[in-house]
Amino acid sequence: MTRGRFKDIIMDSTKIKALAFDVFGTVVDWRGSIIREGKELGREKGVMDIDWGRFADAWRRGYRPAMDRVRSGEGAWENIDGLHRRILDSLLEKYSIKGLCETEIDHFNRAWHRLDPWPDAIQGLHRLRRKYICATLSNGNVALLVNMAKYAGLIWDCILSAELFRHYKPDPQVYQGAARLLGIRTDALLMVAAHKNDLLAARAAGCKTAFIPRPLEYGPENVPDIKPDPEFDITANDFNLLADQMGA
Amino acid sequence: MTRGRFKDIIMDSTKIKALAFDVFGTVVDWRGSIIREGKELGREKGVMDIDWGRFADAWRRGYRPAMDRVRSGEGAWENIDGLHRRILDSLLEKYSIKGLCETEIDHFNRAWHRLDPWPDAIQGLHRLRRKYICATLSNGNVALLVNMAKYAGLIWDCILSAELFRHYKPDPQVYQGAARLLGIRTDALLMVAAHKNDLLAARAAGCKTAFIPRPLEYGPENVPDIKPDPEFDITANDFNLLADQMGA
Repeated sequence: MTRGRFKDIIMDSTKIKALAFDVFGTVVDWRGSIIREGKELGREKGVMDIDWGRFADAWRRGYRPAMDRVRSGEGAWENIDGLHRRILDSLLEKYSIKGLCETEIDHFNRAWHRLDPWPDAIQGLHRLRRKYICATLSNGNVALLVNMAKYAGLIWDCILSAELFRHYKPDPQVYQGAARLLGIRTDALLMVAAHKNDLLAARAAGCKTAFIPRPLEYGPENVPDIKPDPEFDITANDFNLLADQMGA
Repeated sequence: MTRGRFKDIIMDSTKIKALAFDVFGTVVDWRGSIIREGKELGREKGVMDIDWGRFADAWRRGYRPAMDRVRSGEGAWENIDGLHRRILDSLLEKYSIKGLCETEIDHFNRAWHRLDPWPDAIQGLHRLRRKYICATLSNGNVALLVNMAKYAGLIWDCILSAELFRHYKPDPQVYQGAARLLGIRTDALLMVAAHKNDLLAARAAGCKTAFIPRPLEYGPENVPDIKPDPEFDITANDFNLLADQMGA
């Protein structure tokens, strides 16, 4: 629907040189993957009565306040593996999941390194890479993003992470740092995300924005805000449609 | 020749999880590529009487003292694009190459973003990526490495650069920082390089080492030190032979 407007942008100056992708929810289905990993753990450990969807939601919900403590300066820098682990420790207690050794807890914590891509992600990214530099730009740490790409078969031109800037999104340092490392102006960087707050912060930092609604991110019963918004330069329902709109 | 010793390492504990590749000279033929770019510039600008091999050598020679000024703290941090540009400015004067506009000088400076891989590099890397995480670990800046990979058709799991650590190799912070970002122990990281000083520094920082002699790096008349050295964990004459030895 914003085809006309976006065409103006790329025809105007072929300004967009690189795409920066949010990852959790935008590229990969974290909730479905955590449910899969939870069920596997449950089978192995004989813990069968857990609603892993709610477990996944709680794990994810803990992430924002944990990051905000780092963002506000209240907590020292800690990467997402570390933040995920603190939240997991409290959830294991809350759900009375017992009898896991350190190796097993660490393996489960790294479920976030083994997230499955949305069905359009691999092909769409492959097409977009033919024409643009495609980088991650995630709050996930570098190791998590590298391992996930390997697991999921995603190919990136560059792994960029909040960890490199010691600032979490939506701090402007992340978006501006990505453009700087890629050697381009911020307005030559298109932030691609399923979350409006990420895009609004990217836009405030000087980037272009592409909104990819992912209605199933929080499960079939919790549809997030997927209303198109003319504030964003482009809206596309998946990565293939984004590639169509961007001539890739 | 070090097959036995290396096999012990990987059989011992399957310790090696990731490979970090030096790039200039190890993955790509910088000298041949700069000669190609110089000749192209010469044809366009009618500058025909330049020995571009010697020009390339001088450009490359300037890089070590320029980096050392940063390493010693004498100069502020500056990325390789910046260091290359200072050296280029002085070479353009020395060789009396005149009449280039800023855009042309900048384009020529970015010849270092358009370096051709050695003949074995793409296939060998493809094989190694099936079994190991393969990252760059270069003094080249991130944008340079991303653009070069795109130009050359190299696929990396991760672009790691001295720029991320604000330290140039052979400072230990670079090798240790790479292992930290990849979430592995330094002795699970195999540094792959054509240069012994790089490998010795990696080893001192705790990494494993693979020596890939590149006899033609400095042109057919200036063969560098390519003598195998038992100090290194592995020696292989190209990336395919490295993949053979590593079971990839």
